[in-house]
Amino acid sequence: PDEEVRRQAVARHERLTKPAGSLGRLEELGIWVAACQGACPPRPFTRPRVVVFAGDHGIAAHGVSAYPSEVTGQMVANFLTGGAAVNVLASAAGATVRVVDISVNADTPERVAGFKVRRGSGSIDREDALTDAEVRAAITAGRRIVDEEVDGGADLLVAGDMGIGNTTPSSVLIATLTGAEPVAVVGRGTGVDDNGWMRKTAAIRDALRRARKVSGDPVALLRTAGGADIAAIAGFLAQAAVRRTPVVLDGVVAGAAAAVAEEMAPGARRWWVAGHRSAEPAHAMALDHLRLEPLLDLGMRLGEGSGAVAALPLVVMAARVLAEMATFDDAGVSGPA
Amino acid sequence: PDEEVRRQAVARHERLTKPAGSLGRLEELGIWVAACQGACPPRPFTRPRVVVFAGDHGIAAHGVSAYPSEVTGQMVANFLTGGAAVNVLASAAGATVRVVDISVNADTPERVAGFKVRRGSGSIDREDALTDAEVRAAITAGRRIVDEEVDGGADLLVAGDMGIGNTTPSSVLIATLTGAEPVAVVGRGTGVDDNGWMRKTAAIRDALRRARKVSGDPVALLRTAGGADIAAIAGFLAQAAVRRTPVVLDGVVAGAAAAVAEEMAPGARRWWVAGHRSAEPAHAMALDHLRLEPLLDLGMRLGEGSGAVAALPLVVMAARVLAEMATFDDAGVSGPA
Repeated sequence: PDEEVRRQAVARHERLTKPAGSLGRLEELGIWVAACQGACPPRPFTRPRVVVFAGDHGIAAHGVSAYPSEVTGQMVANFLTGGAAVNVLASAAGATVRVVDISVNADTPERVAGFKVRRGSGSIDREDALTDAEVRAAITAGRRIVDEEVDGGADLLVAGDMGIGNTTPSSVLIATLTGAEPVAVVGRGTGVDDNGWMRKTAAIRDALRRARKVSGDPVALLRTAGGADIAAIAGFLAQAAVRRTPVVLDGVVAGAAAAVAEEMAPGARRWWVAGHRSAEPAHAMALDHLRLEPLLDLGMRLGEGSGAVAALPLVVMAARVLAEMATFDDAGVSGPA
Repeated sequence: PDEEVRRQAVARHERLTKPAGSLGRLEELGIWVAACQGACPPRPFTRPRVVVFAGDHGIAAHGVSAYPSEVTGQMVANFLTGGAAVNVLASAAGATVRVVDISVNADTPERVAGFKVRRGSGSIDREDALTDAEVRAAITAGRRIVDEEVDGGADLLVAGDMGIGNTTPSSVLIATLTGAEPVAVVGRGTGVDDNGWMRKTAAIRDALRRARKVSGDPVALLRTAGGADIAAIAGFLAQAAVRRTPVVLDGVVAGAAAAVAEEMAPGARRWWVAGHRSAEPAHAMALDHLRLEPLLDLGMRLGEGSGAVAALPLVVMAARVLAEMATFDDAGVSGPA
C-alpha cells in the first residue's frame, strides 16, 4: 500500500463532516483501501470477487470430520447452482463467486477443473500431502487465478475454501508456525463429536511431528502437512500482494494459508484485512500471529469465504464514506469550538 | 415476534446446506427476522429506513461538548443534501434517510420541522428538559413517525440522533436506570477535552441527582433529564414494537432512549437488535441492561444512526441466507456421516 496516499487519506478524513476518529475502525479501513488503490479519494469497488478453492484431504478417511468426503464434490455443484451460503451472501454483498476444483476426490464439471492438481491430498498424519511438483503446481494455480481475476477487473478479492477435513491441515500449519500444542489448535470443524475430536487431535499431533521438521521452509511445509487447496490459497494471497489488490480474509483455512503466504512473501499481509474471527481456536492464533484484527466476531465457522463476505459491506462502506462524505468547508458546518 | 415462526425458522436452518449453527450469529439474526415478520422463509427487506432525530440541549451552553450548538442545524442541512456519514452509509446499505427537527435551536426547512416541539431542551443540570406537555408531544411525535413510515412501507427501522450535547442526557438516563455513578458513564462524546470532561462529569452528577427522584416513572424521567429528541426516539422504539417492525439500534443516544422505552413498554426490546457497541462507556451499560448483544464493535462513536446502518447489511444477509439457501434435499448434498 502507498504511504503517501495513506497520509492523504488520513488528512481527508480529518476534513469530513464528523468528529475526527468518530467512525473508528471504518476510518482505518477506508484509509487502507485508499492506500491499496494508490488513490485518495478511493474508487468505488466495481468487481469484488470470491474464489472458492475446493479440495479433499486423505485424513478425512480417518474419522476427523462429521461429514463424508463426497460432500466436497456435492458442494461444488451447489456453488455452481448458487445454493450455498457464500452464493447468497455474495449476492447480497455485490460480489460474484467462482469455484475451482484444486483437489476434489471426485470428477467435477470441466469448467471448474482446469487447475486440478490431484484427487485428494495425502493423509498428513502418515504421508506427505503432496509431491514437490504438486505443491508447486498448486501454488502456481493460485497465482494464476489472481492474475486472471485482476486482469478481468476484480478489485477486491476473497479466498474461500470447501473441503471435508480441511481444518485438520489448517490447524497443523498454524500450530507449526505459532509453536502451539495440538490440543490448543484443534476445533470442532463442521461439528465433529467427542470421539472424532480425539481422532482429530491425534492426527494433528502426528502431522505436527512431521511438519515441525520443515517449519522453516513454507513450500516444504505445504507439501508435508498442507494440501493442494491450501497451497493454492497461499499462492493466491501472495499474488494478490504482487498485483496490489486488497483481500478480505476468511476463517481458519484462509488464515492458515495466509500464515504460510506471509512466510513465502513477507509483507504480503499489508494487502489483507481480516474479515472475521472464526469459532475455530486456531484461527485466533493465526490472526494474532499475523497481527490482524478481525472486523466481525459472530461465531461463524462455515468457511467458503462466508465470514469474509459478511464483512465485505463494511469495506465497501468504508471506501464510500471516505470518497463521498462532504467536508466541513463544502457543507458549511462549523468545526470544534 | 412470533414463537411458532421462530421454531419453523430454527428447523429450516437445520435443513440448509451447511453444518447446523456454522453461521453463528447470522443464523440467530435470520431467525429473529423471520419471527418479527411472522413469516418463514422471511421476506427480503424492501424499505429499510433511517430516521435522524435532531435536537439541541441547553447543557451544551455549559461547555460539555467539543462543538458549538449551531452545528446541529448545520448538520440538518448536511443530511438534506446527502453529505453526512449516515447518508453515505445508508446509500451503501440500501436504506433511505429522513431527518426530523424535534428540538433544534435554530430554524430548519419546513419539511423537516413538522414535529418540532421546542427550540432546544432545558439545561438538565439545573432545570427540567421539557414541560409535561412537551414530553408527551415528543413521545407522540416518535410514535407518529413510526406510523407514517410503516404505513409507507418501511420494513426495517433505524433511529439516528444529531444534537450537540446529546450524550450528556443520554448518560444521565442510562446511569439512572442502571444505578451507575457519573464517572462510570461519562464519555468523550464528539471529543471533548479534559476540562470539558470535568464539566460534563459535574453536569451529569447534578442532573443525575435530579433524575433519581423520578427514576420509577419513564415519562417523568425524559421530562426531567432527557430531551425532546430522546423522548421522540423512545416513542419511536416503543411504537416499532406496536407495529411489529424490527429495529436496528445505534449507539448511546438510541441506547438511552431504548432503556427508557423498555420501561414504558416492557417487552418492546424483543423487536430490537443492537447494531453495534459504541466507544461511549454508557452504551455498553445500556446494552447489558437490555440484554442485547451488539453485532459490531468497531470503536464507532458518531451517532446519526451510523453504527446501526453499518450493521444493516448483516441483517439483510441473515434474512436472505435463511430464505434463499438450498436445502440438503434440494441440492443433493449428504448430511453428517
